[in-house]
Amino acid sequence: MLNELKQQVLEANLALPRHHLVTFTWGNVSAVDRREGLMVIKPSGVEYEVMTRDDMVVVELESGNVVEGGKKPSSDSDTHRVLYLEFGAAGGIVHTHSRHATIWAQAGLDIPAWGTTHADYFYGDIPCTRQMRNEEINGRYEWETGRVIVETFAERQLDPAAVPAILVHSHGPFTWGKDAENAVHNAVVLEEVAYMGIFSNQLTPGLANMQQTLLDKHYLRKHGKNAYYGQ
Amino acid sequence: MLNELKQQVLEANLALPRHHLVTFTWGNVSAVDRREGLMVIKPSGVEYEVMTRDDMVVVELESGNVVEGGKKPSSDSDTHRVLYLEFGAAGGIVHTHSRHATIWAQAGLDIPAWGTTHADYFYGDIPCTRQMRNEEINGRYEWETGRVIVETFAERQLDPAAVPAILVHSHGPFTWGKDAENAVHNAVVLEEVAYMGIFSNQLTPGLANMQQTLLDKHYLRKHGKNAYYGQ
Amino acid sequence: MLNELKQQVLEANLALPRHHLVTFTWGNVSAVDRREGLMVIKPSGVEYEVMTRDDMVVVELESGNVVEGGKKPSSDSDTHRVLYLEFGAAGGIVHTHSRHATIWAQAGLDIPAWGTTHADYFYGDIPCTRQMRNEEINGRYEWETGRVIVETFAERQLDPAAVPAILVHSHGPFTWGKDAENAVHNAVVLEEVAYMGIFSNQLTPGLANMQQTLLDKHYLRKHGKNAYYGQ
Amino acid sequence: MLNELKQQVLEANLALPRHHLVTFTWGNVSAVDRREGLMVIKPSGVEYEVMTRDDMVVVELESGNVVEGGKKPSSDSDTHRVLYLEFGAAGGIVHTHSRHATIWAQAGLDIPAWGTTHADYFYGDIPCTRQMRNEEINGRYEWETGRVIVETFAERQLDPAAVPAILVHSHGPFTWGKDAENAVHNAVVLEEVAYMGIFSNQLTPGLANMQQTLLDKHYLRKHGKNAYYGQ
Repeated sequence: MLNELKQQVLEANLALPRHHLVTFTWGNVSAVDRREGLMVIKPSGVEYEVMTRDDMVVVELESGNVVEGGKKPSSDSDTHRVLYLEFGAAGGIVHTHSRHATIWAQAGLDIPAWGTTHADYFYGDIPCTRQMRNEEINGRYEWETGRVIVETFAERQLDPAAVPAILVHSHGPFTWGKDAENAVHNAVVLEEVAYMGIFSNQLTPGLANMQQTLLDKHYLRKHGKNAYYGQ
Repeated sequence: MLNELKQQVLEANLALPRHHLVTFTWGNVSAVDRREGLMVIKPSGVEYEVMTRDDMVVVELESGNVVEGGKKPSSDSDTHRVLYLEFGAAGGIVHTHSRHATIWAQAGLDIPAWGTTHADYFYGDIPCTRQMRNEEINGRYEWETGRVIVETFAERQLDPAAVPAILVHSHGPFTWGKDAENAVHNAVVLEEVAYMGIFSNQLTPGLANMQQTLLDKHYLRKHGKNAYYGQ
Repeated sequence: MLNELKQQVLEANLALPRHHLVTFTWGNVSAVDRREGLMVIKPSGVEYEVMTRDDMVVVELESGNVVEGGKKPSSDSDTHRVLYLEFGAAGGIVHTHSRHATIWAQAGLDIPAWGTTHADYFYGDIPCTRQMRNEEINGRYEWETGRVIVETFAERQLDPAAVPAILVHSHGPFTWGKDAENAVHNAVVLEEVAYMGIFSNQLTPGLANMQQTLLDKHYLRKHGKNAYYGQ
Repeated sequence: MLNELKQQVLEANLALPRHHLVTFTWGNVSAVDRREGLMVIKPSGVEYEVMTRDDMVVVELESGNVVEGGKKPSSDSDTHRVLYLEFGAAGGIVHTHSRHATIWAQAGLDIPAWGTTHADYFYGDIPCTRQMRNEEINGRYEWETGRVIVETFAERQLDPAAVPAILVHSHGPFTWGKDAENAVHNAVVLEEVAYMGIFSNQLTPGLANMQQTLLDKHYLRKHGKNAYYGQ
């Protein structure tokens, strides 16, 4: 069942340690089959070294029920489900505790758009959510984590297709993309701009955002109908 | 004698350079056999590349006498002994000079609980001891190092099972766990949160601790009778 | 056509990930054949792992026309062209988003000459351009990027042969050299001095430039007719 | 001639990139044969990958004459010579531009003794020289670099055997030891304490030196007649 998607999700999960985005099992990747209404996700707490395609867990998007797989899905499954249900553009989702993105999440700050590396992938600041409320934490925590992400995009009127990343306050980043591999790609870029932002801001405290014109130029030369980057 | 435990201690010692926690021979791991009242520990100043199972030294917990082994035990053996004698939950102990944990130790500061990476493993701030007194340093130094660790947990009413790490002032970290491997695991996490804390605090000077509710949630979803993380 | 030059450009491009200067395809190297008025450059958006000599694209310097090659040239080709047309000493050019040079570019700051590592390769501060104007960004953007680099050298009366590097504001570094390999060499050094500068300035805020005498000494012991470094 | 010493010097030079202390050819190691009054040193500007034992150059300590070797000695040879002539305890010498030690040198600051990692190897602060004078730079520069190092130890009444490292202002570190390998060992430790110092000081600005008692304890448990570390 969904063997091709499972293989993609496996490979995307294995790409996380290769890109130095995870320590131990601190990350998870999923992908969605929208026609079937199913999500394939990494099992909870299994080490990358021994993970196989058949360890991937198939979860029904609407109900959260495990449809196939002998293992429990990632404890963050409900967060992934909310994002697939609300963000139509997401074909794959990644969660990590990658060092520098997590540093911004712990500091409770958005990552401002400070350069073309950022603009090539993210069409504006990468938002950090508000802190979660006690009743959210003590309730359906992982589901509510997804809800606070959705709320952040709604309140700030952001398009998840144009800004495919968020920092969950005091926690860490989620990224998404057209498929699992693309979501990992965005996680790598996020970590890169998170690193550079810390020290750009150190060199020039209170650094202003980049020019909107330059942000437009770089984002739109790689995305949309007038893109001209690549083959 | 204790060949299985020696093998575990050897492997845990070899894991330190693999996790980039040590330079040269600056680290040591031990494990305890509580029924026998014996501790197995790395020999002093032996390079990781040439270390074998039979280089591990067996030390009597109560007396500190070497029971087996042709080499001198780690110079920090007495610190390990105190911790085993006082912290019943410790099955294995690690000492390193890992860069970022040591940075906090040199700065003489606790590492505040600033995110869920921390909360997943440590149920509150990671304490830094007071400076040691001259008579402690000039007396049974390594033993007294253990005593000041124990004093820190007692004075702050901390549970060593829930906060399995400490920073010794102007020195570096000790971590422990249910066995040698788990103690190394905690040493890796400590280094990770130590790194992230430096820069979270740089981005938001005077950063407040994370919410207690969130700390509870993450610690308890991985530990204790209501844990639901992993398989 | 230009097979030797293509091979050099290929190898110089492959050196970028080996020196940890690029993530994904974020870098490009070119070299020039001045007699033929042709430039060989990396294709746009092709991964380093699969790139071959025959993927390199041959571009006419004056017109920008692709003379040979089945792929589109790097989207930054026009910037390279301007630099070859204006900087006679440039035999090879490199563009990357290497982390620490990009940090300075994002901060909008020159990298001051703060030590002999810098002085061994760059005869003075490494300039950062002004921000580009909206009409430049919305016009022939990549060409104008080259123009603002040339303007910076002209206004500050700098010799591109003596300071073979620049930071483009909010973007990243360009370096050049007598050939493609030498341009990569300078990109590595730039990244090194960029890293060290961030933290030298942190230790001594407002750090003064190094002594002119020492800058002269180190630059001239490696460059020019009185050089005595090397074999 | 001196084949064993040449082999040691070769291996010590090759250890520099392995310990990530050098970029390109930016480092050199030498060793001395005091009975013969000869120094063996790396050739100037030769890449580590192709260097062989027979590339090592034999230099007469007193005169600086090349006694054997088909290549020019390191351009820093005269600095090494001064140190051997003045520091009787030096059997091997290392010069690098290792990142974090160089950061302190560029900032013009001593590295304070801030922890036991430091105290295990260096019996007090690691000094930074004064800036060199114009006449020193324009005169016999490399020889004068050695002289300013010697002056620093003399003026501060430091024992080069107990503090086997120095930072040359605006330049980088020199370390020494009982032989070439030991000098490399000290270069690694220096880089480690240099890194940790930057961020300990960031966490606690104006951080006080460690207690003298603790410095004594750690240095003397590894050095001198009462040492008890190692086998």
